[in-house]
Amino acid sequence: MPPKVDLVIVFRSSSGKIEPKPLARQNARHASEQYSKLLQALQRGGLQAVGKRGERDGQLLVMVSCPHALIKRLAQRERHSDFLNGLPSRHSIGGEDIDANPLSPADQIRLVHTYITSTEGDGGLGIAPASPQWDRVESIMALHDHLFNDTWIRSWTTSQLGLVTPEKIREQFGEAVALYFAFLASYTKFLIFISAAGIIFHFFVEPYSTVYSSALLIWSVAFVEWWRIKQRILSVRWGTNGSFRVEKRRAQYQPITWWRRELRILSSLPVILFFAAILACLLTGIFVFEAFVTQLYKGPGAKFMSFAPTVLFLLLVPKVLAIYHTYAVRFTDWENHSHQSSHDASLTIKTFSLSAIVAYGGLALSAFVYVPFGEEVMTWVQVYLFHTQTPFHAKAKTWASTVMSTLSTSPTASAVADAGKAAFNATSGHHWEMDNANARSKLNPTRLQDQMYAITVINQVVNTFLEIGLPYVMRAVDSVRAGKGLTLANNSAGAKKKRVQFEDEATGVAEVANNIAGVEEKEFLERVRREAALPEYTLFADYSEMVTQFGYVALWSTIWPLAPVMSLINNWLELRSDAFKIAVHTRRPIPARTDTIGPWLDTLTFLTWLAALTNSALVYLFRPTDQCRAVGTTLQHGHHHLSDARSSTRQLLTSAAVVALAASHGYLVLRMLVRHVLERLMWKGSKEEQAAERLDAQIKQQYLRSI
Amino acid sequence: MPPKVDLVIVFRSSSGKIEPKPLARQNARHASEQYSKLLQALQRGGLQAVGKRGERDGQLLVMVSCPHALIKRLAQRERHSDFLNGLPSRHSIGGEDIDANPLSPADQIRLVHTYITSTEGDGGLGIAPASPQWDRVESIMALHDHLFNDTWIRSWTTSQLGLVTPEKIREQFGEAVALYFAFLASYTKFLIFISAAGIIFHFFVEPYSTVYSSALLIWSVAFVEWWRIKQRILSVRWGTNGSFRVEKRRAQYQPITWWRRELRILSSLPVILFFAAILACLLTGIFVFEAFVTQLYKGPGAKFMSFAPTVLFLLLVPKVLAIYHTYAVRFTDWENHSHQSSHDASLTIKTFSLSAIVAYGGLALSAFVYVPFGEEVMTWVQVYLFHTQTPFHAKAKTWASTVMSTLSTSPTASAVADAGKAAFNATSGHHWEMDNANARSKLNPTRLQDQMYAITVINQVVNTFLEIGLPYVMRAVDSVRAGKGLTLANNSAGAKKKRVQFEDEATGVAEVANNIAGVEEKEFLERVRREAALPEYTLFADYSEMVTQFGYVALWSTIWPLAPVMSLINNWLELRSDAFKIAVHTRRPIPARTDTIGPWLDTLTFLTWLAALTNSALVYLFRPTDQCRAVGTTLQHGHHHLSDARSSTRQLLTSAAVVALAASHGYLVLRMLVRHVLERLMWKGSKEEQAAERLDAQIKQQYLRSI
Repeated sequence: MPPKVDLVIVFRSSSGKIEPKPLARQNARHASEQYSKLLQALQRGGLQAVGKRGERDGQLLVMVSCPHALIKRLAQRERHSDFLNGLPSRHSIGGEDIDANPLSPADQIRLVHTYITSTEGDGGLGIAPASPQWDRVESIMALHDHLFNDTWIRSWTTSQLGLVTPEKIREQFGEAVALYFAFLASYTKFLIFISAAGIIFHFFVEPYSTVYSSALLIWSVAFVEWWRIKQRILSVRWGTNGSFRVEKRRAQYQPITWWRRELRILSSLPVILFFAAILACLLTGIFVFEAFVTQLYKGPGAKFMSFAPTVLFLLLVPKVLAIYHTYAVRFTDWENHSHQSSHDASLTIKTFSLSAIVAYGGLALSAFVYVPFGEEVMTWVQVYLFHTQTPFHAKAKTWASTVMSTLSTSPTASAVADAGKAAFNATSGHHWEMDNANARSKLNPTRLQDQMYAITVINQVVNTFLEIGLPYVMRAVDSVRAGKGLTLANNSAGAKKKRVQFEDEATGVAEVANNIAGVEEKEFLERVRREAALPEYTLFADYSEMVTQFGYVALWSTIWPLAPVMSLINNWLELRSDAFKIAVHTRRPIPARTDTIGPWLDTLTFLTWLAALTNSALVYLFRPTDQCRAVGTTLQHGHHHLSDARSSTRQLLTSAAVVALAASHGYLVLRMLVRHVLERLMWKGSKEEQAAERLDAQIKQQYLRSI
Repeated sequence: MPPKVDLVIVFRSSSGKIEPKPLARQNARHASEQYSKLLQALQRGGLQAVGKRGERDGQLLVMVSCPHALIKRLAQRERHSDFLNGLPSRHSIGGEDIDANPLSPADQIRLVHTYITSTEGDGGLGIAPASPQWDRVESIMALHDHLFNDTWIRSWTTSQLGLVTPEKIREQFGEAVALYFAFLASYTKFLIFISAAGIIFHFFVEPYSTVYSSALLIWSVAFVEWWRIKQRILSVRWGTNGSFRVEKRRAQYQPITWWRRELRILSSLPVILFFAAILACLLTGIFVFEAFVTQLYKGPGAKFMSFAPTVLFLLLVPKVLAIYHTYAVRFTDWENHSHQSSHDASLTIKTFSLSAIVAYGGLALSAFVYVPFGEEVMTWVQVYLFHTQTPFHAKAKTWASTVMSTLSTSPTASAVADAGKAAFNATSGHHWEMDNANARSKLNPTRLQDQMYAITVINQVVNTFLEIGLPYVMRAVDSVRAGKGLTLANNSAGAKKKRVQFEDEATGVAEVANNIAGVEEKEFLERVRREAALPEYTLFADYSEMVTQFGYVALWSTIWPLAPVMSLINNWLELRSDAFKIAVHTRRPIPARTDTIGPWLDTLTFLTWLAALTNSALVYLFRPTDQCRAVGTTLQHGHHHLSDARSSTRQLLTSAAVVALAASHGYLVLRMLVRHVLERLMWKGSKEEQAAERLDAQIKQQYLRSI
């Protein structure tokens, strides 16, 4: 039987860089001091700690286990604090039933983790990874329960959602992860409704249907408001409702007046806007470059050159996002949040707002800028470029005209080309006459649909591969590199030196390690090392993917009503692949208590509001205006009537503004109604509402009797 | 010393109608039975009750007083229930300090009143006035404390707000009335800020200033949000926070599913809209009639005829409102609210929504329909009336032209006239040339200002007279009529008969009455009879007046920035006249516990939203477009540029819609910001917030110790 280990502290004895000898020695002494201080602190705190060598050089793994008496005391303390702070209770308050109903694995790990990391003021040991005092403590990790993981993975393949309930996930990985799976499962179930509607409208009803987009809006509002209540019900059931009230302070927190912090939060707004502007320019630039390269370049490797824009996108956009991310992290640290949850929320909103621009920017540009206003823009560009008769003129004109015709072959850009051509026709009619009919035939609504197809189908397949397949590849590469790495002259010298240093230190202090022996022990140690090499699990990526997908469905599926069906299929896989990822590709998540999906709920709410705007604008711009011509749109309709392009554009802009603003008001009213009705249906008189009040009444009754 | 009487039950022994003898006798028997049942119920409930003859025929006054032991028990019961329902406590929970800190007069009256009226299920006697079981119980009233009232009135005249604090008012009249005075005082203090701004902008800045209207909007949002928190602070201080949780059920309530009640509430919407439409037509009709009568009618009594529209308004509008009110009452009863507070809220919103149309309709019509679209409307009317050349044509044309020129003399209508004339000029230019210059000079912004002056100054003076002076007149008329009434043949027979019947019954059952004698007793009885003749006090009229006034300031004071100054002066008087009204002109209000001004807060919030719309529209339409011409407006500006009237109107409508909708969004953002900042400034960390939490923590600590 492997030893019972609650947590593993990953300790770094060397900095990992090559340093001059005196500095290295000083570092080693410092590491040794902090290591022994760590072991002492753990032992003084009543925990059992054993140090082992890690897989990487200079890495120490401290196995921590918590005696039963201590864990009982910790559980009692938490239950008292929960009770005093008004959290609903699932157990007896005094904690006297811990022996009868043992703690779940998640609770056990969480209690020990909180005990180790929370500040001394909060009654913990204050060992926060990467804090100034514990700069050598890299991270604290929990070990997987492989028996559970195997059952979990197998249950996904053999059956439906049934076998492993959220309750089981909660017992294993804690409330935060369980809430994610509950969210994912609920969202997937909700997708069934809109998928059914999508199939009907895609095959039997004309595109850009007012009915479908209204149904879509109601569906999205209903889902978000439904989940708002559902998570409350779950949190009452799990005893975490109001968990922010018992959240421990961050070790990095410095007291600060409220308005100072809020001004700091506000001050990050210009930075977000600045990066958003850069991203928008970049996206537009790549779009134009794509047109240029696919049409103009006929030299060697032309076929490969057509991939250049995609490569450019893959190289530049993540780079910009990465640079932005470092700023976002720095700003969020500077904001100095008192609790981890609000810190995470702030960072999440910062990060997601830019990735949403990347996600939805292309579609928004195609639908709302190039199609309706491309004509204006192109006229302006033409006047700007060609108003003088220079030798450059002819060349530029050729280039511009080629770009224009290219745009019409790019699926997303045909509308632009058409608009541009119309403008060219007006001013230099002779140049474009032969293309006119051709271009008109290309303006058809399936272009935007192709873009949607690319996003919802291809993107999701790629994403699934990145989540499941790529880690295998990466680890294979890593192990190859590690195996060969020792022969590389540059690295090996430092590494060897470090290992020697480490072993000196290790034998000096970790005498306890000698007590353990045997094959089983070695296997266990091997397992720990393997898990320590895995990345930490974060919920951000998973939530981000699902919320982005919800955005595609809610904002754009009017373009292509099959999008929800594709999302449904993807999520059926996603439920399994996310479970697989946690079990195989990451460390076991440290359980955390939470009563909400937090910033993601705000994001979802914001997306439903945005959906009201995009849906109304899409329907207004693209709906067929008469029964005969299926591809006729309001845009064309408008152009037929009005001769003056400038006044027509202005009018279109004003009307679009009225439509969008009115839709926004409609959204607010709809949300209020849906929220009210759902609140009455789901919450009022529910088991959970009564449970939330029962304990309170009981205590007060007893208090009254006592006086 | 007069006897200690807590409450007086007004009992009606006869129906007040003349009835055939058998029915009258049956009625008398029924009354006699119910009267003895009443006395028995009171005595069984532990109360002391004495019946006396009332001032009117067939009226009995039952003096109820509550023994000290009973009141102590009632207080204890209430404190327990408050505690169990989580209301903040001002006293010891057990109520053992009642002897040391005696109950305030308001609490004493309220406890006895609640005890008598609440249902037996709620532990009361179930004697609800006008309920099927107690149809002879007219009302239950409390007696004034004249010593307090005199001090109160005198303190207003000799000093500022200082002497009588809200706390004193609360002790005398209960929380509901105290909250009204606190609201009125707060609002008046807030008016000082915007009055100062108003004076500056009226005298030194050009009219329809963007800066003033923005300041106005921020001020109104700030006031409403400030009060939202202030009332919470007051309710914690007064121990009424969450008082709806301990509110007793209405005796008339029949259990009903929630959606059925809410559908009933929704179903009253068409009725409201129907009456609103009728009112709007009526107002427009009177407006046109005014123009007709002042100009055309030259017969005998022409001078008096010019008052006809005003008389018509005074006759018809209140009539419509009265009819509507009976429907509103019926609908609200049908809605079957479980609590009096939600019943009152529903009725208040119904009533106020129509009176707001009367209050603001005239200004809105002038500013937003006649001025910008009068031209369109008049063109349409002209085409409709004069498109055929009949003999009638000439006559009609003369009439129409006279009406048009009349409108220009009516202060509110000059703009219409001008617009109409412009249209006439376009189509039948020869007819109107001589008037053109004249009409143009009449379109000047002071017209709307005159209307505002009439409303804020004259209306308020009239209102104050109606509140303070009229009751004296009415009572004088009543007493004269009562003195003469006995000699009128028709009434006296029935009255005498009834009195005889009554005295028979009275001597039969109210033997207790004989115990009391002496001059002082008679004086006291005289006082009770006098107070029983007064109307009951309701907060509706007072809140309605203040909220309507807030609406004038927030919605329209951009037209005339002196309006807040006038309101400030009026309110300085209002604080005194309302106190005077309570003390002299009405029965003592039955104290009620409340933690909010309820529907009025919603109304205020709605008005601030509306203010965002009207202010942005007013500034957009009327602001001077260039520095030279002070009276030039966007309207004229628009007309200069665009020749096609129809397209210009359409464009104006769309732009106005964009401006208003954008303003509405701006309002939502502004409110969120103001609410957040005020919440942090006023509530977080305040004494009251801590007090709300202290008791809870204390109890839970004790509970933990006990287990």
